[in-house]
Amino acid sequence: MIAMHKMFLVCLINFTFTSFAQHPSIMLTQARLPEVIKGVYEYPLLKKAFVSVKALADEAVKNPFNVPIPRDGGGGFTHEQHKINYQYILACGTAYQITKEKKYAEFVRTILLKYAAQYETWPLHPQQKPSNPAGRIFWQNLNDCVWQVYVIQGYDMVYNYLSVADRNTIEQHLFIPVIKFLMEDNQETFSRIHNHGTWDVAAVGMTGYVLNKKDWVEKALKGSKVDGVTGFLAQVNQLFSPDGYYTEGPYYQRYALLPFLLFARAINEYQPQMKIYEYGNGVLKKAIHTALQLTYTNGAFFPINDALKDKTLESEELVYGVDLAYCDIQSDADLLDIATKQDRVIVSDAGLKVAKDIAAGKSKPFIYKTLWLTDGNKGDKGGLGILRAGDNNDQQCVLLKASAQGMGHGHFDRLNFLYYDNGVEVFSDYGSARFLNIETKSGGEYLSENKTWAKQTIAHNTVVVDQVSHFKGELTKAQANHPELIYFNTTNDLQVVSGIEKNAYDNVTLTRTIALVTLGEFEKPLLIDVFQIRSDKEHQYDLPFWYQGQITNTPFPIQSNTKKLEPLGKDFGYQHIWLNATGSSTTGNGAVTFLQNKRFYTTTFLADSSSLIKFVTLGANDPNFNLRNEKAFILCQPKANNHLFVSLTESHGNTNPTAETTTGPKGKIKSLKLISDTAGVSSFQIITETKVYTIVINYNSKQTFISIK
Amino acid sequence: MIAMHKMFLVCLINFTFTSFAQHPSIMLTQARLPEVIKGVYEYPLLKKAFVSVKALADEAVKNPFNVPIPRDGGGGFTHEQHKINYQYILACGTAYQITKEKKYAEFVRTILLKYAAQYETWPLHPQQKPSNPAGRIFWQNLNDCVWQVYVIQGYDMVYNYLSVADRNTIEQHLFIPVIKFLMEDNQETFSRIHNHGTWDVAAVGMTGYVLNKKDWVEKALKGSKVDGVTGFLAQVNQLFSPDGYYTEGPYYQRYALLPFLLFARAINEYQPQMKIYEYGNGVLKKAIHTALQLTYTNGAFFPINDALKDKTLESEELVYGVDLAYCDIQSDADLLDIATKQDRVIVSDAGLKVAKDIAAGKSKPFIYKTLWLTDGNKGDKGGLGILRAGDNNDQQCVLLKASAQGMGHGHFDRLNFLYYDNGVEVFSDYGSARFLNIETKSGGEYLSENKTWAKQTIAHNTVVVDQVSHFKGELTKAQANHPELIYFNTTNDLQVVSGIEKNAYDNVTLTRTIALVTLGEFEKPLLIDVFQIRSDKEHQYDLPFWYQGQITNTPFPIQSNTKKLEPLGKDFGYQHIWLNATGSSTTGNGAVTFLQNKRFYTTTFLADSSSLIKFVTLGANDPNFNLRNEKAFILCQPKANNHLFVSLTESHGNTNPTAETTTGPKGKIKSLKLISDTAGVSSFQIITETKVYTIVINYNSKQTFISIK
Repeated sequence: MIAMHKMFLVCLINFTFTSFAQHPSIMLTQARLPEVIKGVYEYPLLKKAFVSVKALADEAVKNPFNVPIPRDGGGGFTHEQHKINYQYILACGTAYQITKEKKYAEFVRTILLKYAAQYETWPLHPQQKPSNPAGRIFWQNLNDCVWQVYVIQGYDMVYNYLSVADRNTIEQHLFIPVIKFLMEDNQETFSRIHNHGTWDVAAVGMTGYVLNKKDWVEKALKGSKVDGVTGFLAQVNQLFSPDGYYTEGPYYQRYALLPFLLFARAINEYQPQMKIYEYGNGVLKKAIHTALQLTYTNGAFFPINDALKDKTLESEELVYGVDLAYCDIQSDADLLDIATKQDRVIVSDAGLKVAKDIAAGKSKPFIYKTLWLTDGNKGDKGGLGILRAGDNNDQQCVLLKASAQGMGHGHFDRLNFLYYDNGVEVFSDYGSARFLNIETKSGGEYLSENKTWAKQTIAHNTVVVDQVSHFKGELTKAQANHPELIYFNTTNDLQVVSGIEKNAYDNVTLTRTIALVTLGEFEKPLLIDVFQIRSDKEHQYDLPFWYQGQITNTPFPIQSNTKKLEPLGKDFGYQHIWLNATGSSTTGNGAVTFLQNKRFYTTTFLADSSSLIKFVTLGANDPNFNLRNEKAFILCQPKANNHLFVSLTESHGNTNPTAETTTGPKGKIKSLKLISDTAGVSSFQIITETKVYTIVINYNSKQTFISIK
Repeated sequence: MIAMHKMFLVCLINFTFTSFAQHPSIMLTQARLPEVIKGVYEYPLLKKAFVSVKALADEAVKNPFNVPIPRDGGGGFTHEQHKINYQYILACGTAYQITKEKKYAEFVRTILLKYAAQYETWPLHPQQKPSNPAGRIFWQNLNDCVWQVYVIQGYDMVYNYLSVADRNTIEQHLFIPVIKFLMEDNQETFSRIHNHGTWDVAAVGMTGYVLNKKDWVEKALKGSKVDGVTGFLAQVNQLFSPDGYYTEGPYYQRYALLPFLLFARAINEYQPQMKIYEYGNGVLKKAIHTALQLTYTNGAFFPINDALKDKTLESEELVYGVDLAYCDIQSDADLLDIATKQDRVIVSDAGLKVAKDIAAGKSKPFIYKTLWLTDGNKGDKGGLGILRAGDNNDQQCVLLKASAQGMGHGHFDRLNFLYYDNGVEVFSDYGSARFLNIETKSGGEYLSENKTWAKQTIAHNTVVVDQVSHFKGELTKAQANHPELIYFNTTNDLQVVSGIEKNAYDNVTLTRTIALVTLGEFEKPLLIDVFQIRSDKEHQYDLPFWYQGQITNTPFPIQSNTKKLEPLGKDFGYQHIWLNATGSSTTGNGAVTFLQNKRFYTTTFLADSSSLIKFVTLGANDPNFNLRNEKAFILCQPKANNHLFVSLTESHGNTNPTAETTTGPKGKIKSLKLISDTAGVSSFQIITETKVYTIVINYNSKQTFISIK
């Protein structure tokens, strides 16, 4: 039904453009320009944004024009020069519109004429990589698309300044050949249902609007054959789940969002009758809001799959996202809280509205939600469970990753979980192994350790069977399967999510249930993690907890490798791990306490005499110093067919180094006892100084999935 | 001369107290009270301070009184309870004076009566340690002194509220026995010229003023025998250098400062004619300012010797220090900048003045200085060289530690150097190995690794000979010797400090010269580090650089220990270091580039085929997970008699993960060549793409100590 509805909309689209005479007409429009100019002096955030745009524009006009023949890969000189050039062009275009000073328009004119004088002579980039189609300005076609998306906006800003002759030169010798390159020579990318495809159609479509090329716009929207099978609308339909989740994960969701938003904004200006923001059940709107929900309160995106951990809500894509969502879609007051944290807006119609409303004091705290976000364009390929407790200043947040593989950037980490508290990571994800744009580190590309370490299962907080990664680390098989949601529910005192993965290993079923539970005597909600494994054969099961912080207590015997360290294994990431120490417990359970960001965390777990607790450090087989030396304790069951890992994490006490005080350095849990574990039911007891809690999980009952007494 | 001058002042002191009837008369005085009460509503910082004092007082009055029989060591229950009690008493006293609400005074009355009912029955603390004299309330006498210093201030605040009978009970059964314990039973501590002694005399002296016991005050000021050989004035004379540097180092300088300041404040109120702040050539004033200069722009104290690295200018001691310096000594506008960063003041006469002047907009940026700070009470025992370049937002700072041993908390790190830039540590000091107040970590005391690792030479950025620490790690010998300053000078473009150490090893002379030089083509001043070693015998020389960040480039061959790690040695800290890799260079020099806080650092060093570059990680022989896994590269000359280490560190470029840009990832230095190295002269060439600089150091010439051409 949904698919048919979408096709129907595609057919309805009317290719009548509004007033082609109007320039500019994308982020900044002729109609709102007087108000924006006034706003630059009135609203602090817009003023600040303009000051920084103008600073960049002033830097541009001071420097000699530099349009070098493309030569270097990412991070290299010509790469960075062409990158700063498109930023200069947009900044100068914007500065020209706000100040009307000719020097800025003249910069855009001159540099575009320089590009126009050379572009046709540039062959494919000499540093092209086999993994990605080559560009002509940059090593990747992708970067050329981004270049065009920015440059066309700058051109739009100075359009009215340029003589007809200059326009002709720039269009004939630069934009038309660029678009031919992007749309025809790179038709494969242009037709991809993938974020690279989105950048491509956005470049073509936005240029089509500005240059009045209906043909380009139609193809950008509906694909080369104008049949709706590829192109922007197909991408909108297929790349996001009904909850607005992008299957590659938050890092790429952020990245993918920008061309969607810029092109959507252009569509909304030129063809408002398309109601592009409502298209596909409003999925673009959802995608922005979902991107915001895919962060912790420190602004950082959940770093699942290939992700650089530095990325936060402050990234430019989300500045566009928040501004456009607030201005064009729905003016939710809590978006202003994010804009305030971003501390900038785009100098644009949207930025004006955001800055104005923030100045008027309309901002409200951003509302972080407990959510189940479906994955897959039909919402049927697993998803992410996000549990949250506490306010934005001190929030516990747990993520259960039960989403699909996420294509080539996906990690083999089914039922991985992440835990944040008190503003920081507690149980963390390594993210990707990459030093973006640093040439000496594999040219700024993904390092080989991204494959040998970051993608492997043991790099994540989930179960590894027999020291082999999920799906043996093979993408095709992983992409063909996905976990499923068993249960998700949230009430005031109890948030639960449970997912199942049947395909990661032959004949092994993995079920993980995560709960955040408010129990009176605990300082903070208790994190309950129940990982059930069912198999008819004996295996080794490893469940790592990659913790941040420093261990302060391990009340069980430990054998430490003080004189010699050796790697824990030979492959699937185990070759990168040094085994520091091995512990065991004869009491039926064990606990590890560590201190992170001045707060204590105690994880109490089931452990009998057959269990091992391995303490490890990342860094083996790392001849180029590429890895961070993260640490984990691994709960290891060397031989079992069925097994139940139960781990309870308390957040407690604090240290105050300024006042030199320590409170609550010990957890409340005295012990943990397994009662029973069958295919249908897992149950156990938590014993504190004063109480005994019995937890029962009924995997087959939606009504009484979990009970705590 | 100075010593005589001081003795003269001691003789002049007149023991006439001003108005004994006045209560309170220490931080908050009867005379200024109306203004402080008004200021609490008018000046934001004072208001904020009072809100937090009142919150603590409100917590106090809500909780049941708890005066447990002393039982636990640091971090334990009774320890923390008695600690919070003295904070409650002071907070309630202050809240009473500001609000006049009786409940606060009543709290102080009741709890002091409870103490008075028990104190005399308490024996020495059961957890006493052999290393420190025992208290009765706490495990250390020191803590009892601190308790009394706080409590007497709270008592002073409620003095007028109490009935004569209550006062008698409290004084007879609590304060008089406490003072007897501190002054007589612990006469050894009372007579120590040491920070423990200062807490003791402050407790006795302040109590003497409040209880009108002249005898106590005299003894506190001039020692048990009232001869000036011990006591507060002797401490002032002997514990600080003429530059106001406290020999144990910045961490203990901060700690030691508080009793000096509180007692000085009381003296200044009760006996203003003593002009205590001018006493000893104004050394207390200097000590406050020097404490501020012993920090980096992020507020952290230089963590030399035993130091917890969390300690910043925000610690309470410095809040007192800044408030009192500004109010009682000299109202330098840049102190208000520090107070603004501290974001609080003491609710007091001094806090009033600071908050009022901040509200009036009088604050100016704190002026960090390039300094040579002498050590030793006569200023003749070496010192610290601090070089700084750049403003407070982006400051390069280098510290050369050429100070004396610093007693039992000193580290064996003669000529150690630290380097900060861009708001963070670049070449760092481990600080102490200690988890303060965390019972599971050696009871919150110094860990055994403090001795086996943190104090050892290899834990620092200075030369180790034959893998043996300076002075073989023996305190007595180390304390008996000190390095000497060879040269210190600072001009706009060139800051230099040079120190010599002749006694750390038999027949080995160590001379280190550090310079920050502005050279046109470099982005930031260049850090030049020239470490000359002269010996008549062959030795192994190791010079570690404990860097923060991640290596991005090592352009020389490296053998990596990918399959097995072993410790670098057996003792003197080497047993705690894993050897990850060993490099060597045949080009005469080598370089290591690393990325820290989004900026690149390249250290270029002399290295011929006989040199080794060892890459190491801390963490071997650490069965209790006590150590942080810090990293270093060690320049190693396995066999040489005379040797010259030259290392040039460039701060360059940056990465911006939000904008995904990278600039200047490579340093400008192409190579480095030794020209000559004799006892009197070291010279070398720095070769960049465009220039050759020749550096000559004449160790024997003050006129032309260094030339750069």
